[in-house]
Amino acid sequence: MIQGINHIAIAVSSMEKVIPFFRDVLKLPFEGTEEVVEQKVRVAFFKVGPTRIELLEPTSPDSPISKFLESRGNGLHHIAFETDGILSDLDALKAQGVRLIDQAPRHGAHHTQIAFVHPAASHGVLVELTQPAEKTDGTP
Amino acid sequence: MIQGINHIAIAVSSMEKVIPFFRDVLKLPFEGTEEVVEQKVRVAFFKVGPTRIELLEPTSPDSPISKFLESRGNGLHHIAFETDGILSDLDALKAQGVRLIDQAPRHGAHHTQIAFVHPAASHGVLVELTQPAEKTDGTP
Repeated sequence: MIQGINHIAIAVSSMEKVIPFFRDVLKLPFEGTEEVVEQKVRVAFFKVGPTRIELLEPTSPDSPISKFLESRGNGLHHIAFETDGILSDLDALKAQGVRLIDQAPRHGAHHTQIAFVHPAASHGVLVELTQPAEKTDGTP
Repeated sequence: MIQGINHIAIAVSSMEKVIPFFRDVLKLPFEGTEEVVEQKVRVAFFKVGPTRIELLEPTSPDSPISKFLESRGNGLHHIAFETDGILSDLDALKAQGVRLIDQAPRHGAHHTQIAFVHPAASHGVLVELTQPAEKTDGTP
């Protein structure tokens, strides 16, 4: 069940250029960067209240983020809703016939379990479900 | 000073088509709609934790949202950061030479005071500052 927004992701071609805006201009606490090898991205995190802004920079030309940047440039990429039960949420979505990118959860940054809804189902908005590591429901 | 995310705005050509996804599929509490005449949009609100998802539907072909939809279709439109002092924040941004769309706050939905940063300053992401009605610092 969705409990809040875990993060808002922004695709950027160069996080070096964009980090100063969020860190020094908006003065959001900067929490560092992490590489998510599986998704071919480097991620920079900024805390904002109980949620985060995440900058996504591709680490390879065949990263999904590279394709997004080629067609649209830097910009808002997806919303990640935080859930305490990603497996039951995915089951509920499947039962409603909602098209999914991920039929089962996979590993995200910060040891989360994540799954994406297909943007065709969510009317053009890329939606992620995120279950934080501390909110396990037995997900492998 | 930024304290959290007030809302995430999604541009849609028809909120009738998109409301069911957020209300019935993701099961976010639906808070109704409001027309913001000044900005030529109708807004639908969904609560998610301490923040909101807002759907923006143009009420006129010359609405800024119409132009966005023509070039990109339905999709994430802007992030609104919540502040308790929009006047001092705008002063601080001006002092840093940050390009703004709004030099002074104007009226948003829910009796808020709002101002947009120019996307050229924020690297392609449209950023709004929002001061809720209950957090007044003397803004007219």
